[in-house]
Order: sequence, then structure tokens, then C-alpha cells
Amino acid sequence: MTETPPDPEPVEGPETTPVPEPVEGPETPPVPEPVEGPETTPVPEPVEGRIARVAFNSDGLVAAIIQQWDTHEVLMLGWMDAEALRRTLTEGRVTFWSRSRQEYWRKGDTSGHIQLVRGARLDCDGDAILLTVEQVGPACHTGTRTCFDADDLEPVRGPEL
Amino acid sequence: MTETPPDPEPVEGPETTPVPEPVEGPETPPVPEPVEGPETTPVPEPVEGRIARVAFNSDGLVAAIIQQWDTHEVLMLGWMDAEALRRTLTEGRVTFWSRSRQEYWRKGDTSGHIQLVRGARLDCDGDAILLTVEQVGPACHTGTRTCFDADDLEPVRGPEL
Repeated sequence: MTETPPDPEPVEGPETTPVPEPVEGPETPPVPEPVEGPETTPVPEPVEGRIARVAFNSDGLVAAIIQQWDTHEVLMLGWMDAEALRRTLTEGRVTFWSRSRQEYWRKGDTSGHIQLVRGARLDCDGDAILLTVEQVGPACHTGTRTCFDADDLEPVRGPEL
Repeated sequence: MTETPPDPEPVEGPETTPVPEPVEGPETPPVPEPVEGPETTPVPEPVEGRIARVAFNSDGLVAAIIQQWDTHEVLMLGWMDAEALRRTLTEGRVTFWSRSRQEYWRKGDTSGHIQLVRGARLDCDGDAILLTVEQVGPACHTGTRTCFDADDLEPVRGPEL
């Protein structure tokens, strides 16, 4: 009398279908490296994806800290809506949304004190942008280099380490 | 006949009353040097006057850019109401108002990554503060040095000058 042998214990071995190695070949279209296009030709879709990462506030605005790229001076703080950010990321010039005038404000169009974009970083919770720029002339409408030159809040200093 | 000799020409010499050296003595109360009081004892009125210069937004908040005082790295952007600013200006440690948790948040109380105040400047229209600090450890809750390290918005660069 022959008994059917019991089902074997599951075996870890060659029976386990191995995960195939990715095959490089003409049939498999390789994932293209991200291409930095010519700087005057922004690719629209990726820009929208980057803008979509921004957590605009209830007024549709995000704070943008403007920093001189080489001296690291903090020059000013401005505000951008999605369109101002879109222009800033694609035009090489910084554009703000003016809350007081309720209009777009490309920095330097009237004063000549333009800001040429050098870099842009979004912070960890998406609600602040650090823009590094080449500032032409004074950043502040008062004529000072930065908007933080005039008013010292004279804090008590913390201890030295 | 004897003539009275003419008055002698003014002579520079011992006759010229010398300006007396300042005498240190109990009778002459010296003009006191400005005294920096103990850092834990802020003078209330001037602090309130400084806080009154701030243009808090409709939520009662002001943006505070935090910058490492010596390397000039921009570390993060936080928000303060009048009380958080009062504590920051008088305690030597940075305190924010946490919008997500709706509570005061003295940076580093749980993480140890404290921010020791080195300077505080108000901008030209009063609605942004630049705080220079000595940052202990990483500034970002993700463990990176700054909150702007992770997300590159890859802008088109403006032209070189």
C-alpha cells in the first residue's frame, strides 16, 4: 500500500521564484537621467510638480527669504503666490506678490535693483523658500543693502558656549 | 625816571592755567559707565517699546528668519507672537509660536538643539525679524543642519553679471 507522502514543508530554495535582475536591453527603455535643459527653456510639467510641493498659506502665499548667494547676507523677506513662484523659477529673475499693492512685482523693474536667481530651496514642511540671488544694488527700497539694516531689537544675548 | 615796563607778551608757560587732570575722589561723582544689567533682568518698558514696533499679521504673528551668526547659514523660518518675541528678546533663547500645535515652543527644550540669541533685527516694514543665533546641533527636526537642505526647487538661473 502506497501512501501519498505528505505535502513537503515549504522549502526555501531554488523553487522560490527569484526576483529577476533588471535586464538592460533595447526592449527595456532605460529610465532617462534627468536632463537640465538650456536655461532659457524651462520644462513646464516639472515646474508644476515642484510648485505643487509648496504648502501655500490660506491666502495662497509662501514666504521667500532672499539671500545674497556669496556673502550669505539675508537681504529681505518677500511673498509669492504660485504664479510669482512659477515666474521666479523659470525666468531667472525674482518676482514677488505685493500684498500691499495686490500685484506682481518683479524686483528691480522700476528701481533697477534686480535679483538674479542662483538657487531655490523649499523647507522641510514646504511653507518657506530660501532663494539665493545676485542682488544688483541695494535690496531695500530705503536704499540700504538689506531690509534688516536699520532697526536693532537689542535682544539679551544667550550665554557663550 | 622809571617807566613801567609794558605788559609782557602772553607767554606760553606756567602762567597758563593748566586744565586740571580729572580728580578721582569722593567729592566728584564720576559719570557712570553704561551698565549692562544681569541678562536675566530685562527692563520691561524698552522691551515693550521694541515689540510695539513690530507689525504682527492678522493672526498676531511675525515671521522670524533664523540665521547662524558666524557661518550666515539660513537655518529655518519660524513664527512668533508678541509673547514668543518677548521671551526671545529677554531670555537669550529662541521661542516660537507653533502654529500646528498652538503652543509656545522654546527651540531645543525636547531635542536639546537650542538656539542661543546673538542678534535680532526688524525689517524696514516691521513684518519680518532676522534673528542671528548660535545653533546647537541640527536646526531641523529631520536631523539636517538646516530646514532647507532637502528640497531643491531647481530654478532656472539668471544670467551672470
